[in-house]
Amino acid sequence: MVDKIKVAVIGASGYAGLELVRLLVRHPGCELAALTSLEYPGRPFSQIFPALAGIVDLPFSQDPAPAKIAAAASVVFTAVPHQTAMGMIPRFLDLGCKVVDLSADFRFRDVSLYEKWYQPHTAPDLIPETVYGLPELHREEVRRTRLVGNPGCYPTCVILGLAPLAQAGLLSPHSVIADCKSGASGAGRQALLGISFCEVNDGFRAYKVLEHRHTPEMEQELSWLAGTPVNVTFTPHLVPMSRGILGTLYANLTAPRSEGDLRELYRKFYQGHPFVRLHPPGSLPDTRDVRGGNFCDLALRVDRDGRRVIVLSAIDNLTKGAAGQAVQNFNLMMGFPETMGLETAPFLP
Amino acid sequence: MVDKIKVAVIGASGYAGLELVRLLVRHPGCELAALTSLEYPGRPFSQIFPALAGIVDLPFSQDPAPAKIAAAASVVFTAVPHQTAMGMIPRFLDLGCKVVDLSADFRFRDVSLYEKWYQPHTAPDLIPETVYGLPELHREEVRRTRLVGNPGCYPTCVILGLAPLAQAGLLSPHSVIADCKSGASGAGRQALLGISFCEVNDGFRAYKVLEHRHTPEMEQELSWLAGTPVNVTFTPHLVPMSRGILGTLYANLTAPRSEGDLRELYRKFYQGHPFVRLHPPGSLPDTRDVRGGNFCDLALRVDRDGRRVIVLSAIDNLTKGAAGQAVQNFNLMMGFPETMGLETAPFLP
Amino acid sequence: MVDKIKVAVIGASGYAGLELVRLLVRHPGCELAALTSLEYPGRPFSQIFPALAGIVDLPFSQDPAPAKIAAAASVVFTAVPHQTAMGMIPRFLDLGCKVVDLSADFRFRDVSLYEKWYQPHTAPDLIPETVYGLPELHREEVRRTRLVGNPGCYPTCVILGLAPLAQAGLLSPHSVIADCKSGASGAGRQALLGISFCEVNDGFRAYKVLEHRHTPEMEQELSWLAGTPVNVTFTPHLVPMSRGILGTLYANLTAPRSEGDLRELYRKFYQGHPFVRLHPPGSLPDTRDVRGGNFCDLALRVDRDGRRVIVLSAIDNLTKGAAGQAVQNFNLMMGFPETMGLETAPFLP
Amino acid sequence: MVDKIKVAVIGASGYAGLELVRLLVRHPGCELAALTSLEYPGRPFSQIFPALAGIVDLPFSQDPAPAKIAAAASVVFTAVPHQTAMGMIPRFLDLGCKVVDLSADFRFRDVSLYEKWYQPHTAPDLIPETVYGLPELHREEVRRTRLVGNPGCYPTCVILGLAPLAQAGLLSPHSVIADCKSGASGAGRQALLGISFCEVNDGFRAYKVLEHRHTPEMEQELSWLAGTPVNVTFTPHLVPMSRGILGTLYANLTAPRSEGDLRELYRKFYQGHPFVRLHPPGSLPDTRDVRGGNFCDLALRVDRDGRRVIVLSAIDNLTKGAAGQAVQNFNLMMGFPETMGLETAPFLP
Repeated sequence: MVDKIKVAVIGASGYAGLELVRLLVRHPGCELAALTSLEYPGRPFSQIFPALAGIVDLPFSQDPAPAKIAAAASVVFTAVPHQTAMGMIPRFLDLGCKVVDLSADFRFRDVSLYEKWYQPHTAPDLIPETVYGLPELHREEVRRTRLVGNPGCYPTCVILGLAPLAQAGLLSPHSVIADCKSGASGAGRQALLGISFCEVNDGFRAYKVLEHRHTPEMEQELSWLAGTPVNVTFTPHLVPMSRGILGTLYANLTAPRSEGDLRELYRKFYQGHPFVRLHPPGSLPDTRDVRGGNFCDLALRVDRDGRRVIVLSAIDNLTKGAAGQAVQNFNLMMGFPETMGLETAPFLP
Repeated sequence: MVDKIKVAVIGASGYAGLELVRLLVRHPGCELAALTSLEYPGRPFSQIFPALAGIVDLPFSQDPAPAKIAAAASVVFTAVPHQTAMGMIPRFLDLGCKVVDLSADFRFRDVSLYEKWYQPHTAPDLIPETVYGLPELHREEVRRTRLVGNPGCYPTCVILGLAPLAQAGLLSPHSVIADCKSGASGAGRQALLGISFCEVNDGFRAYKVLEHRHTPEMEQELSWLAGTPVNVTFTPHLVPMSRGILGTLYANLTAPRSEGDLRELYRKFYQGHPFVRLHPPGSLPDTRDVRGGNFCDLALRVDRDGRRVIVLSAIDNLTKGAAGQAVQNFNLMMGFPETMGLETAPFLP
Repeated sequence: MVDKIKVAVIGASGYAGLELVRLLVRHPGCELAALTSLEYPGRPFSQIFPALAGIVDLPFSQDPAPAKIAAAASVVFTAVPHQTAMGMIPRFLDLGCKVVDLSADFRFRDVSLYEKWYQPHTAPDLIPETVYGLPELHREEVRRTRLVGNPGCYPTCVILGLAPLAQAGLLSPHSVIADCKSGASGAGRQALLGISFCEVNDGFRAYKVLEHRHTPEMEQELSWLAGTPVNVTFTPHLVPMSRGILGTLYANLTAPRSEGDLRELYRKFYQGHPFVRLHPPGSLPDTRDVRGGNFCDLALRVDRDGRRVIVLSAIDNLTKGAAGQAVQNFNLMMGFPETMGLETAPFLP
Repeated sequence: MVDKIKVAVIGASGYAGLELVRLLVRHPGCELAALTSLEYPGRPFSQIFPALAGIVDLPFSQDPAPAKIAAAASVVFTAVPHQTAMGMIPRFLDLGCKVVDLSADFRFRDVSLYEKWYQPHTAPDLIPETVYGLPELHREEVRRTRLVGNPGCYPTCVILGLAPLAQAGLLSPHSVIADCKSGASGAGRQALLGISFCEVNDGFRAYKVLEHRHTPEMEQELSWLAGTPVNVTFTPHLVPMSRGILGTLYANLTAPRSEGDLRELYRKFYQGHPFVRLHPPGSLPDTRDVRGGNFCDLALRVDRDGRRVIVLSAIDNLTKGAAGQAVQNFNLMMGFPETMGLETAPFLP
């Protein structure tokens, strides 16, 4: 048996970090070598997360300096806020690590787009070699890179939902609406009044309408696929559940198509991609059906005159929308089978 | 003090019926004279709903024959399934009762539209005198009628959200999308696997995409307001909460408008209507804020070029979307103040 | 019509304060004269709580100095943390106000008991005139006092559940166990990781086992009723719901009794108390049935040999467990009917 | 590599059956050979449970006759109601299968006890060879049997929580109280009004107080361990969550012990048992921490005078409380490592 790859998770006490740890500890090709957390240095992971007692008792590193981490691990997952990520990633690369970054810092090909929605970029020289880690679109580039910008949760849901239409030139410009609904873990593991139980339970609301930073990420990929600018009207909502995103995606077609036509288009587009599942006619995705799984479940409906399509797209925001996709990218970067460590069946009820 | 109006609730053991009873028992202008239920004849209401022990101990009628009910009550609320409703309402009218019908049977001005989406209508002669009971559009007609077709929950949310735009001719034909999310009480008080706790909790899904019977109701009213046919692409979703509907409504404008323009349009349209509340700029509706209240809370966003509007519309599906609106109609029919019995503040957290 | 009593709510932006405002704004005998909040001075109440837009638009006071408040209001509800409360209440009393205090500061007759569980008391001279505001036990004293120590939520549930047994001398010493389960609003309206949605949803846990400060409050009242020290083993738990407490109370009886005997004992004890409801045999309380209502719902079960009793006791922690009970006390202090402003039926589903 | 064991799941469309399938499909030592369901014969498993599309597409057997099942599988898991189970199990045994029965039919050593709480037993001759499948108590017997009576969910929680005390003779007779709280999946996958979303959400209630059939199961095992009859006062409650049981277990000690003493007792008792985890002092179990894991998490508290102990015991009712424990028993019966196929980390948030 070959040696296992030693990996580190930077920011392992957030929800995406926790999910990474949960997946990586059972991944047959790697070993958790270091975990860091700003809040809990020196404390055992399982003291903060008793769910993993006896499974991950490794303490959070006392000294999270990149040199220390890089001495222990050859692959680093950065699950820290944007800006923090780009502050440390160049150092990890210099030290010879490969990096999967779960922040927004390396998702944009056009640095000015990043800077318009976020802040000045402090490592713009790395952008040309960065790969947007949506394997269903960029699998080969991911295999060859040392730095993956792991996609946002909403963009994963929306781009996978519309990619076949974009590539086929069927998306009418200015017609795309992405009405998305996310569980509360999308807001992170934080002490915030707005996501306290009583402020979320038994309620439903939109937020950041027309202002959410995931918009340009969707537009970047869909425009690239379409070969022409695609605008997305994106509305995120908060659902009183822990995990999951459902995107209800609307677009006018540039030419009429039947539901059958589009199903065939999608089937071909996603052939060979193990994590995209197309629902049979009459069946619709539920976020429960992808909970804890790395799947993106899709269904299609076309209106009577074949002019407007509705795509339903469901992912688990922490799995395919974050940590699972990061592991998928890791597998590709390491030459492992793409599904390695991601075979667990979704968790229900 | 004048005598209280005696009222009956037919189908008082469903959620809409329960909400009617909850509201009417505290309504200063009426008295609960009869309650019926197919399942619990003869049993005290508070035995089925211990929440109302000591408040409503009246038993469900042993004999729910219209003659018996009409002998006891002068106004009848029918909270029974469509088809059942139109089977009994003509008799109540003949017996001199006024009727607020919460089913779909008397919501359509065009009987063929009803028959296309539902089944043959058995009392089509009543349709001309029926009023669609959305007081914000038809207040004066409601005052004068003896038969109100109380609107559906989703249509209430969507029509109130778009009415000012429709009337102003600003809705671009074929552009309207109503992405709506409802709590589980919308499915009624039923033993169904699909709405059992474990099948709803911590999940989110769309259902009846492009097939929901509330679509023609929305189109009827918006087209009437616009003076031209308006199509609505309507997608309902199930939220893991008990009550509430949020509609995220998208439309292209026939002419560019600023958010301020539209806010002013809405303000004028709803002036004098006590149950529609327009959120200030920067604030968005939450279904929690209307829970148990008869309000429809609205907010507007317009995209950069003033071409697409997003309206957020929140109601409680059992209150403004059913029983509360029925009481509002009752108030108008009786000459009571429109808000009578509906003053309770929304219930949170 | 007589003038309405002017009231102030100090700490009106917490959940108990919010519930007070929700109840008082519809109370026919009073008028909200002043609201305060450390966090939101000067901002309209309805800006923080849009649910009450158009209902309570009064701004939080810019200057919450007692002299300012007392100039505006003759009754003050203090819904602030313990210690803070006793820092301001003497001043309100000096200024001629009556006070209903929702903190723990004036619940104990024995100052040393308070100081053992909390901290040094800064207004011990007021304790002799203070009344423990559980009207079912101390109605007459409440009528005559100017300072009510409004009971804690758990103690309300447990004391009402066991009072008839305690008074009848049926509680075996050292046998009382109060296994209580509360919704998350009991933790207050706070930004705390432990009560964020994802940390509460779909989970269940005990907390502060054998350490909760509500224990001595239960013991004080039950011992007073029994005329002998009663110990309570109290275990609080957190339920993934917003409101409600269910207490499952166990005790050995000093002499065997049938369920019928005990039902009769309870019936007599609570005769004339409008907010305690005894379930009929075969029926059990649900926190849903008291949601938003000021009720305490009780049921009894006795084991085969008549030696151990199980009492189920349900309240809404924010209503009968806090704000509703405060209004009930206010009614007694003002000479209003005890149920005034508290007639709304519980809110379900 | 040796051949995989072929297994069948009878009743695979209930929640326990679903959990069995979810676990067994990823179990390296077995292969799913047959699945049955009364409701869905002939339909693919993944059509009923789209969560497992591409993972378990096997159809439910058209013909679930034992001879057909036994021809395909050598181990049978029966996840059907009691009474149904004992009707088919003798036939499976005759056909040479080993059986893990998740019903109550083979959990009792004393047939009269079974018949008192359930109904006449139709296969009493099998009882002597049956093993109560709680491996922490009966590991060696499980290894040697062909028929395991898999424990109930509540009994698993309560027996594991109290076993060390019972065996050490520390449980005072008549003092044991098991106040247990379960998620809604404990009621099964059924269309029942009482477990519909709106009847469970945001509420909490006890049920079957002093009447639940899991009581004699707890008493059987604790009495056997204690060598003297142990009575349990058992109160089940319904929590608005999908999975999980927390038991809050109270007992008087026959002799005073410190928390440290008892921790040491528990530590020794469960040494070598991989699925029981003892929380460190100061930490308490949460059902979230065992969700989807086969663990039983325990914590202890002793009151000041060392006379009363409180044990907190948390399991996932579908995993350690049903399917996971069945797989654990299967592993022992097959000579596999006890943890095989059960290594997945608990699922949170």
